[in-house]
Amino acid sequence: MDEPEKEMEQLLAANQSFYAAFGALSLEQMSEVWLHEDWVQCVHPGRQLLEGWEEVRESWAQIFANTKRMKLEIGSISAHLEGEVAWVACTENVLSSFEHGFDQAQLQATNIFVLRDGVWRMVAHHASPLPPAPEPTLQ
Amino acid sequence: MDEPEKEMEQLLAANQSFYAAFGALSLEQMSEVWLHEDWVQCVHPGRQLLEGWEEVRESWAQIFANTKRMKLEIGSISAHLEGEVAWVACTENVLSSFEHGFDQAQLQATNIFVLRDGVWRMVAHHASPLPPAPEPTLQ
Repeated sequence: MDEPEKEMEQLLAANQSFYAAFGALSLEQMSEVWLHEDWVQCVHPGRQLLEGWEEVRESWAQIFANTKRMKLEIGSISAHLEGEVAWVACTENVLSSFEHGFDQAQLQATNIFVLRDGVWRMVAHHASPLPPAPEPTLQ
Repeated sequence: MDEPEKEMEQLLAANQSFYAAFGALSLEQMSEVWLHEDWVQCVHPGRQLLEGWEEVRESWAQIFANTKRMKLEIGSISAHLEGEVAWVACTENVLSSFEHGFDQAQLQATNIFVLRDGVWRMVAHHASPLPPAPEPTLQ
């Protein structure tokens, strides 16, 4: 495998680790994924910008505390590498269950990563709602 | 002015040029702002990912054709440079007037730029709806 292929594979693995942490509701795993700097950015669906690892961490802690279980399906992955920076666009199909009910959302995400000491770390996440998928029609 | 300051100033000017093109409903100016590659990405509010300059260009052409006038206010700008890649988060207050009516939207945007031949070009734009600003209360 040549160098760009290897870098792309590692980038997609980092993106996958983000969604693994999300789905596992694991703040520890999520903390591993992100770069801990005061300039990292996060926009949850329909919400304002959060800036800096402390704010971003707190938002995940709240999401995880309020969620009982989460199922995530990632699709339409489109990634681009530019030196030691890369970004990944993908769709998220999110099924969350809470104490009293559940919620399903279709989202479009943009995830930015930087390479630090040979490891891709997330530095920005922006997710926004998509129109609901059309119901399957009876033939 | 030292080099990083100059780069940051040029980056913010590129971000401003994007919104100037948007506000002027000018496809020519918008074309100047973007890098013309098949991997550039654009997510309009509540819409699916568009990929490649042709698709992105077409979407701006449609938006501009359907809009009579547009007034844009940009706020809460937060930018980060990482070598020859940079991204800017900002809010957009968009007032659009059409043939029969008008629309106002509060959006959160993530804009990614790359430096090519000394010029910052947009390579990704992701905008998503924010909750409406609270009405000013009477004292």
